[in-house]
Amino acid sequence: MRILVANANTTQAITAACVAAAQAAAAPGTEIIGATPAFGPAVISTRAENAIAAHALLATLAEYAGTIDAAVLAVSHDTALEAARQLMPCPVIGMTEAACLTACLVGGQFGVLTLGQAGPYEELVARHGLTARCGQVLGLPLTPQQAIANPDGAAGQVLAAAEAMAARCDSVVLAGAALAGMAAALQPRAALPLLDGIACAVKLAEALAALRLPKPRSGSYAAPEGRAALGLSPALAALLRGA
Amino acid sequence: MRILVANANTTQAITAACVAAAQAAAAPGTEIIGATPAFGPAVISTRAENAIAAHALLATLAEYAGTIDAAVLAVSHDTALEAARQLMPCPVIGMTEAACLTACLVGGQFGVLTLGQAGPYEELVARHGLTARCGQVLGLPLTPQQAIANPDGAAGQVLAAAEAMAARCDSVVLAGAALAGMAAALQPRAALPLLDGIACAVKLAEALAALRLPKPRSGSYAAPEGRAALGLSPALAALLRGA
Amino acid sequence: MRILVANANTTQAITAACVAAAQAAAAPGTEIIGATPAFGPAVISTRAENAIAAHALLATLAEYAGTIDAAVLAVSHDTALEAARQLMPCPVIGMTEAACLTACLVGGQFGVLTLGQAGPYEELVARHGLTARCGQVLGLPLTPQQAIANPDGAAGQVLAAAEAMAARCDSVVLAGAALAGMAAALQPRAALPLLDGIACAVKLAEALAALRLPKPRSGSYAAPEGRAALGLSPALAALLRGA
Amino acid sequence: MRILVANANTTQAITAACVAAAQAAAAPGTEIIGATPAFGPAVISTRAENAIAAHALLATLAEYAGTIDAAVLAVSHDTALEAARQLMPCPVIGMTEAACLTACLVGGQFGVLTLGQAGPYEELVARHGLTARCGQVLGLPLTPQQAIANPDGAAGQVLAAAEAMAARCDSVVLAGAALAGMAAALQPRAALPLLDGIACAVKLAEALAALRLPKPRSGSYAAPEGRAALGLSPALAALLRGA
Amino acid sequence: MRILVANANTTQAITAACVAAAQAAAAPGTEIIGATPAFGPAVISTRAENAIAAHALLATLAEYAGTIDAAVLAVSHDTALEAARQLMPCPVIGMTEAACLTACLVGGQFGVLTLGQAGPYEELVARHGLTARCGQVLGLPLTPQQAIANPDGAAGQVLAAAEAMAARCDSVVLAGAALAGMAAALQPRAALPLLDGIACAVKLAEALAALRLPKPRSGSYAAPEGRAALGLSPALAALLRGA
Amino acid sequence: MRILVANANTTQAITAACVAAAQAAAAPGTEIIGATPAFGPAVISTRAENAIAAHALLATLAEYAGTIDAAVLAVSHDTALEAARQLMPCPVIGMTEAACLTACLVGGQFGVLTLGQAGPYEELVARHGLTARCGQVLGLPLTPQQAIANPDGAAGQVLAAAEAMAARCDSVVLAGAALAGMAAALQPRAALPLLDGIACAVKLAEALAALRLPKPRSGSYAAPEGRAALGLSPALAALLRGA
Repeated sequence: MRILVANANTTQAITAACVAAAQAAAAPGTEIIGATPAFGPAVISTRAENAIAAHALLATLAEYAGTIDAAVLAVSHDTALEAARQLMPCPVIGMTEAACLTACLVGGQFGVLTLGQAGPYEELVARHGLTARCGQVLGLPLTPQQAIANPDGAAGQVLAAAEAMAARCDSVVLAGAALAGMAAALQPRAALPLLDGIACAVKLAEALAALRLPKPRSGSYAAPEGRAALGLSPALAALLRGA
Repeated sequence: MRILVANANTTQAITAACVAAAQAAAAPGTEIIGATPAFGPAVISTRAENAIAAHALLATLAEYAGTIDAAVLAVSHDTALEAARQLMPCPVIGMTEAACLTACLVGGQFGVLTLGQAGPYEELVARHGLTARCGQVLGLPLTPQQAIANPDGAAGQVLAAAEAMAARCDSVVLAGAALAGMAAALQPRAALPLLDGIACAVKLAEALAALRLPKPRSGSYAAPEGRAALGLSPALAALLRGA
Repeated sequence: MRILVANANTTQAITAACVAAAQAAAAPGTEIIGATPAFGPAVISTRAENAIAAHALLATLAEYAGTIDAAVLAVSHDTALEAARQLMPCPVIGMTEAACLTACLVGGQFGVLTLGQAGPYEELVARHGLTARCGQVLGLPLTPQQAIANPDGAAGQVLAAAEAMAARCDSVVLAGAALAGMAAALQPRAALPLLDGIACAVKLAEALAALRLPKPRSGSYAAPEGRAALGLSPALAALLRGA
Repeated sequence: MRILVANANTTQAITAACVAAAQAAAAPGTEIIGATPAFGPAVISTRAENAIAAHALLATLAEYAGTIDAAVLAVSHDTALEAARQLMPCPVIGMTEAACLTACLVGGQFGVLTLGQAGPYEELVARHGLTARCGQVLGLPLTPQQAIANPDGAAGQVLAAAEAMAARCDSVVLAGAALAGMAAALQPRAALPLLDGIACAVKLAEALAALRLPKPRSGSYAAPEGRAALGLSPALAALLRGA
Repeated sequence: MRILVANANTTQAITAACVAAAQAAAAPGTEIIGATPAFGPAVISTRAENAIAAHALLATLAEYAGTIDAAVLAVSHDTALEAARQLMPCPVIGMTEAACLTACLVGGQFGVLTLGQAGPYEELVARHGLTARCGQVLGLPLTPQQAIANPDGAAGQVLAAAEAMAARCDSVVLAGAALAGMAAALQPRAALPLLDGIACAVKLAEALAALRLPKPRSGSYAAPEGRAALGLSPALAALLRGA
Repeated sequence: MRILVANANTTQAITAACVAAAQAAAAPGTEIIGATPAFGPAVISTRAENAIAAHALLATLAEYAGTIDAAVLAVSHDTALEAARQLMPCPVIGMTEAACLTACLVGGQFGVLTLGQAGPYEELVARHGLTARCGQVLGLPLTPQQAIANPDGAAGQVLAAAEAMAARCDSVVLAGAALAGMAAALQPRAALPLLDGIACAVKLAEALAALRLPKPRSGSYAAPEGRAALGLSPALAALLRGA
């Protein structure tokens, strides 16, 4: 099985880190391929960047249409997820979506822990229709730069926050690039299951690909057909045409 | 990997059918084991039977604690799901829960199609916090007996209903024992993805078991400990004691 | 009028205390009868115990079918309430349900105050569809044992908590066996109405019995009929058969 | 026990009919008193009339403050309910509120059946926070005049509608003056419990008065105190002053 | 364009202040007229007063029917808004409604800041169906009297609160007479947009009047017609008759 | 006042039609400017096209930053609205958002009427947090091509649909390019107010610009600053840098 791990920003190092995390989670027969957009934000941290990155991510995915069994969106905002799900002929999984759905199988209420603003992740949980399952979204007052400069301090804060979230949550999703990979490292010291978006997305992508479900033939997730556009990449334009 | 497929009613034939469906969906290395409760309703179709079957199902699961990697509840009401998730040391997945969560990965809104009353499945979707993702629950005016007596007629009605549900849904969960196994058979003629609870539950159980997440150590999903009870099966009493 | 006060755990002393509270609230012509399950948890404090107690409670209720005018479930989790309501030929009232509905008649928002975890009571309020009326669920960090060992200290903490809840609530439901009977004792010193589940349930049971409403003849609350089962008590099996 | 049945419109015949219905439902020791506003709409059927009647109803209630044990608002819009609950020193119960809360004790989902527009009753159910418990609000295309001119025809339509509502509801609240008294008459031919607002309100008023709960001393349901106003009736002005 | 600014209490000084604020916000061609009820509460701070003021406000508005292009309700509780909207032949705008809808155009989540109880404003936001857009309602523990006695201190507290609300809100509505006029004065020192109800209502009233939309001819917002009433002002009675 | 009317697709004729509609609605002193993206879909009718158009629209808007007083997004999907609101230094209004918020001022429940799928507009209403105010979304089974070929037939269908929607709605938003301009033409024959997105958006843009509210300085609607990106238009890149 071939799973594409598609970054939505243009930073190659983040793609590489996500590919590594995906490989660690993948089943023996699963091949992980990485991809990085050719244009767009270096890192996504505003609404405007996220909207721009949606186009970049769709263009990136389009290059792989027909050659992969599933795609994982390696961006914690689940950028362009619904559009990608419509566009691509294979399953597409968002990493935060995957972690939240997995959390639904682990307990009643899950928490989301990130660095910086909590608001956008509250919106994301609501966009996925999972607000009723989400006990808390917490944004630690820490920049990604600070977390990288002092990883032990950041780990301590994450553990303490997860501990406090146990009052309302049965598991905690670690969201955002700066916390990537932390789940596995901190799990032995945590009172709650810690969920990593990439790992969850890879397992759900394998599960979904194995189920071999067809795309819907009608409605807003049916594949585009006969759509005309100006100035798009050949691969993206072709998918819109349904070619 | 060993996955228990636990029926909640006392009808062995249903257990056997579910085990067969689970084996068809399982990955090469997965072993499927079936279990049937020693007491309780022959078939669950009322609230009272469902409440009684919860006890029977927990007693059945308790016999396998420590010897399996995950349990799938082979009952479309997801009977005792939250209690079983707390009680057992391994992941526990409900079949309708699994189909609904899988449907979230396939499109925006899913439908649930069953025979008889729609109300209990609307409650079930709400219990899982997924009402916002569910476009329609439809109960066909057909008894399980009629469906078994005239399988072609039933299949035709299911296909026609799924077609009509496409106006509001991107996929359709087939719920209830009488529709078990139909998804795969009807998929080639259906305009939407048809989701089978047992197949989805087996794939999610494999995924969850592979993630090797611990149980929460606090809250209402932490394992029971030191609980005393009267007249329960030795295995169930032992799990409540935390022995 | 004969009202059954049915405990869901196997501890006779709790049944006796609930019967006494019910007698204090009952109208002159009301006779209160107590019942205790023959099997199940000594005290319910986990999801698994609650699921097991549901069966035990239904079996207990079944012994009284046809001989009582209403049943009050003397368990703050409203264990098996919907199943019992379907099963029994008379009105069935849950004690926390009763307190919450009474609170709706007293003000806009009610609070729920308990010892230990707040989460299960938030779920219970949601199960009753009353989340919009519930301003706060508060769990005091106190075990039942501590409350019993130091009743004056516990009373002080309950009063202080109710005082603080007045910022968001117009009344407070005291939930859980450890707070039973406290409402009447503390009311003179409390700024808000304090609601006792047993007292509210007895008054609502009397009201409902007086209205002499029939059971629905269709839907998921219609009485079971013709249901077969294995290994149940004769009285419970008879009710399922509709005999 | 003295219960005031307060009409909100100025039509004496409606007051008399409601008093009769209340007397039929009341317990032996309960005395029912009727009251009709001195000003305001003859019948309430618009938002503007309802807002005006709120003042008229509060002025009417104020005349009885201190002389009654509870008040029932004999108006299916539950006009001024929250304001009356704050203003009066005794329990105040709305008739549609009472029927809806009683319906919560009878099954899972209730319906509301009325003549004319359904919308205002949907708003009313939402104002009471009970939307999650309400399966359907249905407005029959029939004017009160038509119903009075052809009572058998109207009864037939109500029965047929209740029958159809059984697909989504476990009981049906009959709302609006034109359906008053019908519940008891039609119950023997109905498949579902039919709930009459006045009867339910009287029983809940008796129950609440027996519980002898105090008013909250703070918050938006605490009694007004020291409020100045211009041109109000002496009794109403006195209650606002807290005299 | 003539816009009526209708106070709902009987205090002329508040009417004058609101008229001045409206004039400051009005477009060059807009004429602002003030009106004060002839009866009712001096200031509205309880549910009962609000219900009484509804009648007084409708009577006040009725005097101007046909002579104005729009009406702004100069009362932060949006008293009688829906009834007035039905009753009057011109657009009617509530000041808190206007501020909340304007806030929806400025960011994702808005806050509401007031003196005293937060609860009634939470209810108001819910009544407008805007709960999902409201990040926080905060009531400062300050009486209007204290705010008037120490305006600099109050301003400091409002600024500090708005600063703190920035964690969950993109703008802040200042609600209640005591904060009227503060928005413009404090805006230069505030991190978030501060919204003034009167200013927003005047701009929306101008916009709505310019759109020249007709009233609905059916439903619960269609103008009353042929309604009889007792003891109302001639102008109000005439509007109910549809004369 | 200068208001930009920014199309999100690349079809100049649609821009021209929207500019004309905007000019018809604008106040005397308002100048309307049109803009069309340089790349992207010819018409937006799929999720993928909408995601791509978001980038194209932001790039278009960026060309006008600092030279306009407000921007109206001339696309019924409110494409990139939140991102544009964050990005631009002036107010940004979506046309469907504007019509829905205006509808909130006109009655209680509004309807949305479009050609084709209703689902995406239900999602849009939910994204704006206005689901509680929306009584119905109706998609007529008519393609834009059919509507253009037979305008009288389409007008008749729209009028008939609006008539039927009056059972649940107090006004109707006409959504989608194919219905643009119809509101004014059909209003004289319609029983309900018909709302045109462009007209509403222009009036709200004028109102909002007149209020001169600042942007929030923190949170997810604060202007981007110091953001790096690859391959974007100079104007867009400059706004992300905060230059």
